[in-house]
Amino acid sequence: MTTGIFTGSFNPFTIGHDAIVKRALRMMDRIIIGVGTNRQKNNELSADERVNQINKVYTNNQRVEVKAYSGLSVDFAIAEQATCFVKGVRSVKDFEYEREQAELNRRLSGIDTILLIAEPEYSGISSSLVRELMSFGRDVSEFLPNPKINNE
Amino acid sequence: MTTGIFTGSFNPFTIGHDAIVKRALRMMDRIIIGVGTNRQKNNELSADERVNQINKVYTNNQRVEVKAYSGLSVDFAIAEQATCFVKGVRSVKDFEYEREQAELNRRLSGIDTILLIAEPEYSGISSSLVRELMSFGRDVSEFLPNPKINNE
Amino acid sequence: MTTGIFTGSFNPFTIGHDAIVKRALRMMDRIIIGVGTNRQKNNELSADERVNQINKVYTNNQRVEVKAYSGLSVDFAIAEQATCFVKGVRSVKDFEYEREQAELNRRLSGIDTILLIAEPEYSGISSSLVRELMSFGRDVSEFLPNPKINNE
Amino acid sequence: MTTGIFTGSFNPFTIGHDAIVKRALRMMDRIIIGVGTNRQKNNELSADERVNQINKVYTNNQRVEVKAYSGLSVDFAIAEQATCFVKGVRSVKDFEYEREQAELNRRLSGIDTILLIAEPEYSGISSSLVRELMSFGRDVSEFLPNPKINNE
Amino acid sequence: MTTGIFTGSFNPFTIGHDAIVKRALRMMDRIIIGVGTNRQKNNELSADERVNQINKVYTNNQRVEVKAYSGLSVDFAIAEQATCFVKGVRSVKDFEYEREQAELNRRLSGIDTILLIAEPEYSGISSSLVRELMSFGRDVSEFLPNPKINNE
Amino acid sequence: MTTGIFTGSFNPFTIGHDAIVKRALRMMDRIIIGVGTNRQKNNELSADERVNQINKVYTNNQRVEVKAYSGLSVDFAIAEQATCFVKGVRSVKDFEYEREQAELNRRLSGIDTILLIAEPEYSGISSSLVRELMSFGRDVSEFLPNPKINNE
Repeated sequence: MTTGIFTGSFNPFTIGHDAIVKRALRMMDRIIIGVGTNRQKNNELSADERVNQINKVYTNNQRVEVKAYSGLSVDFAIAEQATCFVKGVRSVKDFEYEREQAELNRRLSGIDTILLIAEPEYSGISSSLVRELMSFGRDVSEFLPNPKINNE
Repeated sequence: MTTGIFTGSFNPFTIGHDAIVKRALRMMDRIIIGVGTNRQKNNELSADERVNQINKVYTNNQRVEVKAYSGLSVDFAIAEQATCFVKGVRSVKDFEYEREQAELNRRLSGIDTILLIAEPEYSGISSSLVRELMSFGRDVSEFLPNPKINNE
Repeated sequence: MTTGIFTGSFNPFTIGHDAIVKRALRMMDRIIIGVGTNRQKNNELSADERVNQINKVYTNNQRVEVKAYSGLSVDFAIAEQATCFVKGVRSVKDFEYEREQAELNRRLSGIDTILLIAEPEYSGISSSLVRELMSFGRDVSEFLPNPKINNE
Repeated sequence: MTTGIFTGSFNPFTIGHDAIVKRALRMMDRIIIGVGTNRQKNNELSADERVNQINKVYTNNQRVEVKAYSGLSVDFAIAEQATCFVKGVRSVKDFEYEREQAELNRRLSGIDTILLIAEPEYSGISSSLVRELMSFGRDVSEFLPNPKINNE
Repeated sequence: MTTGIFTGSFNPFTIGHDAIVKRALRMMDRIIIGVGTNRQKNNELSADERVNQINKVYTNNQRVEVKAYSGLSVDFAIAEQATCFVKGVRSVKDFEYEREQAELNRRLSGIDTILLIAEPEYSGISSSLVRELMSFGRDVSEFLPNPKINNE
Repeated sequence: MTTGIFTGSFNPFTIGHDAIVKRALRMMDRIIIGVGTNRQKNNELSADERVNQINKVYTNNQRVEVKAYSGLSVDFAIAEQATCFVKGVRSVKDFEYEREQAELNRRLSGIDTILLIAEPEYSGISSSLVRELMSFGRDVSEFLPNPKINNE
């Protein structure tokens, strides 16, 4: 059984993240979404809130698990017996960041990383942009996965 | 069963290519190496020579198949019932190239692409550099997978 | 009156090119599409065929002119009393290329360049990909602007 | 009438910013410089100080307006009936940042963005470098537009 | 006599930094390692601790000097009569950053910069990654130069 | 004695190349300009013409030597007992290319590479752009070093 680990702060979990999970599910037997809880910043959703948001999206999908974790993501991945990390990349900047992380993770744990390039319609969507819009009182529902539609 | 398609001209197939195949085998049930035969250039190995070179590397591995193909790689991937394309990326330049190819392939066939970042020790090795060394009469065996070791 | 110059080989002119022209028309009074004829390669459409293809797209738009030119694009732009060059960029690679061209053109002629970033849905479409599909006998009409729809 | 919106924190407004405004004035009927006031950081000029600094530079230019704004830049641009955003890009990093912003702004408001590549002599000048020099007590007047010369 | 200046916060000084110093020593008569002390952050080693860590690495090398400095690195370089700055670059992101710094330093002092590309085995190692591992209680000795081996 | 090797096709040798040589001379005892003669293309200056053009630029400089070479540049560098290769980089694209070359050269010969970032005023000048201008009959003397001024 292959297990892909998809880690992040997911603050919030966007339609871009959801698209990566759905694509990874076509290649892997199960996907574990790891919600990192190390660096809680001001004005951010708590780890519980974030786990709850994501859990609602995948209620009906037995192949997706959502878990909070603290500590290094490689330790989380080892504990979950991960086959590999799954990462979405939207830009050259993302690519360079993930290259460094992937190399470190491989060195520390032997666990590999696969990159999925964001589809064009999601390449401009990031949690930080969504947070910025929220801070100005904008409706951001178009950027967040709709649990109803997702679970049909 | 998941099937990863690893296409290229492989002229020649290097230890960098071999590393990508071995990493992909940990995630996918089988890997089909597709040797593109469209653009035979001067001074290049023939398609048959390239297929033979690669076949020797994976003689004892039942999960790897080597096939020549002409035409679009998406048509080859559809015919092989591929789960996804597997690509190695060594640089930002590679990333940008694969982004364009992946988007086109997804659009034409719905088949997705996963990227594996070349391990640092292989990031400087390319078929074109090996060909350049060969053209100056250099021994390039250190850049090519050794079938004996590979099949032990 | 502001005049934007949009030069290229347009071999063929794609829906991505068309999108740039339409966006530029909102900022400039008129757009001159300059079809470069210097480097006719094998298997390419002739300059006349390319001018004709583009002319059909803008038959009903008085603010767009299509002209073939040979020689340096700065000389063409000077002769057309251009306000600036208009360029579409799809990637970091395009950006770096246009940076060099823009600097040279400014140095030779004082004419400036504006960049429009390709919309995500067009970022994967290039003339060379369309040509590659055509060489394999694929229907590429989805990548080419439809004169009927455009002129309604 | 075409209106370009040039937004930023301009802390301070450098000769690089001034060069972008002057270039944009050749293509657009008027330029509105929007001084963002959301994220006042320590040790920074107040919004009023920044608006005053920039106003002095364009005292004699009727086609340039300087305004402070808070909130999203798209809301500011809509209120000012902008034709497009104008952005200067100095590097690949800037390009990737502006690509994300431009896509978001287009999605939220339909307002387009044009990029002007910084001329080489300004490509190394940024507000943050000027601030760093100021923090060490350096004279930075060579990096700031001189109102006297500008208004002659 | 040529003097290369290698500045940084070195928090901590890694085997990647050590590799750059050793490579620079083959081209320059002496290397001065400048430990910047301006921006002491929380949880960081003090300037003295960092200077001591680095001094131990080069105890037996008369051609390497380690000095703390505050203020602009160009002022430090001028005071040390530097021939040039020496910088290691691991990625495109590093390259873009160093390009901006090098241009500023040349403009302020006339002192040039040479870039050494990190060897692949060090391209994934940065002080910030080492600090992150330390914050989780990991043993990071494999990422730090061993004074014993270095001084043999 | 330190010897920097500056290799290229120099077709033609531009003011950008000259600037790199002058900067390298401040760090190295001597610079050997290696004119590669492997890939003579149509419409290009012969190796002799290129060597002659460059020799005139450095007639009065005893620390610069100009030599034609064929074969691998590492073999040339070994024969000349080079300390390192010297390369100018104008863009991210150049950086990625030189990264691959430097890694290969280090692997084949142990000879290191230093990069000098092109000064902004030369970042848009390349031999290929100069050749393109020449092919249209343009005067390109402003892009070529003036032997008279250089040897004063």
